[in-house]
Amino acid sequence: MNLSHPDAVPPGGAVERCRRLFEPAMREAVSALHPWGARMAAFALGWSDADGRPYNGDGGKGVRPTIAMLSAEAVGGTAESALQAAVAVELVHAFSLAHDDIIDHDERRRHREALWKAYGVGPALLTGDALLALAVGRLAARPEAMTYLSAALLELVHGQSADMAFENRPWSGPHEVTIAEYTEMAAGKTGGLLGAAAAAGVALGGAPELADRMWEAGRDLGVAFQIADDMLGIWGDPHVTGKPVHNDLRREKKTLPVLAALAGDGPAARELAAVLSSGVAGEESARQAARLVEEAGGRAAARAMADRYLASALEVLDECLPNAADLRTLCTGLVNRTR
Amino acid sequence: MNLSHPDAVPPGGAVERCRRLFEPAMREAVSALHPWGARMAAFALGWSDADGRPYNGDGGKGVRPTIAMLSAEAVGGTAESALQAAVAVELVHAFSLAHDDIIDHDERRRHREALWKAYGVGPALLTGDALLALAVGRLAARPEAMTYLSAALLELVHGQSADMAFENRPWSGPHEVTIAEYTEMAAGKTGGLLGAAAAAGVALGGAPELADRMWEAGRDLGVAFQIADDMLGIWGDPHVTGKPVHNDLRREKKTLPVLAALAGDGPAARELAAVLSSGVAGEESARQAARLVEEAGGRAAARAMADRYLASALEVLDECLPNAADLRTLCTGLVNRTR
Repeated sequence: MNLSHPDAVPPGGAVERCRRLFEPAMREAVSALHPWGARMAAFALGWSDADGRPYNGDGGKGVRPTIAMLSAEAVGGTAESALQAAVAVELVHAFSLAHDDIIDHDERRRHREALWKAYGVGPALLTGDALLALAVGRLAARPEAMTYLSAALLELVHGQSADMAFENRPWSGPHEVTIAEYTEMAAGKTGGLLGAAAAAGVALGGAPELADRMWEAGRDLGVAFQIADDMLGIWGDPHVTGKPVHNDLRREKKTLPVLAALAGDGPAARELAAVLSSGVAGEESARQAARLVEEAGGRAAARAMADRYLASALEVLDECLPNAADLRTLCTGLVNRTR
Repeated sequence: MNLSHPDAVPPGGAVERCRRLFEPAMREAVSALHPWGARMAAFALGWSDADGRPYNGDGGKGVRPTIAMLSAEAVGGTAESALQAAVAVELVHAFSLAHDDIIDHDERRRHREALWKAYGVGPALLTGDALLALAVGRLAARPEAMTYLSAALLELVHGQSADMAFENRPWSGPHEVTIAEYTEMAAGKTGGLLGAAAAAGVALGGAPELADRMWEAGRDLGVAFQIADDMLGIWGDPHVTGKPVHNDLRREKKTLPVLAALAGDGPAARELAAVLSSGVAGEESARQAARLVEEAGGRAAARAMADRYLASALEVLDECLPNAADLRTLCTGLVNRTR
């Protein structure tokens, strides 16, 4: 799940200005860690390779921090006013990737080894904890932002728990995972932190009264974002995404395209149900499942649902932050991306 | 490392009153988790066995929450005023045990399987994250307490990183671990959360001006506490501690009794250095090392150092909270314990 990538960030002065502020602040935050932890954090953040040499790879271009800073600017604050929130949300994001890769046994991340593959499970776990501790430290004295970061953390673990619990549930029958359950999971796992970025941004930028609505918009954006991610996991190019394709299908992840396909009642939906119930093992069977998901309408339904949730988020944005053109472009890019 | 146990808590009305407040608040906090996470958390907290049946074991008697609430009372506040801080520090403690057991490959905890042995590494990791998220949520809107909880988190990961890094360093020579480094590690890993409990307690109880001094006292208490723990790891009764004996020696943990023994220059110290440099493998060699640590004066030196750090913590306590007899008894009990 690569949630930060160059093509999601629109070009332009505002975004570049945010990045120039953000990067030194992020490095300063990480420099407070134990040297050993700082080295692993630098790998996790794409600043160095596993031996500690500088690395200029796809380390994530900071979608969440940009949202935080652009949100502050959109209510008349400075990007600096939201800088600590920007650092905090990016640190929480890095924490969640480090731990998720352990939990999901994912060996690759952004065209490189996952942190736990490079350093071992224990050190990677501790590095994740350290990133989270740093994040909390940024906002501990700012309750108007901390409450949203804290809510995002709870949503994150709740959503991740739901996602794991889904893997053990059947594809059909009374215990099947519903689209409503999926939506709730995605709003938490993916939307919470986007919501915290936007809410903390407006709160620190001087408009705390808008924070609750930005939080909700972030959750909607998260659903759209997660569906886009699900689609890349099935139809994305692994050379571009940096992650193996069809992983989700093989591990019985309850992704939206598959759930939507199974909700149909045509022959492709029935054939897909049969393939899934006997287990997707091997590349051939995964390819067949992917084809059936598309035939049964799962790809089109996923696209439509992502667009609907994006539109809902943009509606709030247009109402609360009418002059936030860069932010609008950024959100749209997140949902219409190729990696 | 069993840092909470019945005999550390003095009998008496105040402690019982704290416990009656604390337990329902703790259960209420955990009930907000995903049902699957709540079940694992209940196991980790000693409320249920691995199948979810009620369990009345040694789940930890809440030393940290008691410190928080007694500290609030000692400055004229109510125990209730520090209740959310009490819950938060206990949740952070449970988080750290869940993750430490994964990092250290410890299979036993409080006479039962460690969380990761019972449920797997991924689920245990996520449960730890969930406990931490709950903890942060308790104090997100209370910066006067949150700043100390946040500082404790950073100290915790820093100390744990230092402790892990020590394992790869030699017993002697220019790269040996010094007693000063050990002290810094223990003050962070063990003292930070004790300091946060006391500091948040007085801050929420109405005396934020005392919080910095309580924080420092907690760090000193942590050093004493950690040395007591090191001693139990060598000379404790595994039937009482619930953990295998001599683990630390076998894994080359840089514990204080061993560092103090090696600092001597008698024949026992030299023999100990030779045993350690060839590696402690097997029970026989561990027993020999334990005997040599004692002969070389490591046990007595550890006892003296623990007493010194305890005295330093109590001095601050006597000065800042002159009427906190229960708190004083509690701290003394922590350092003079058998499990």
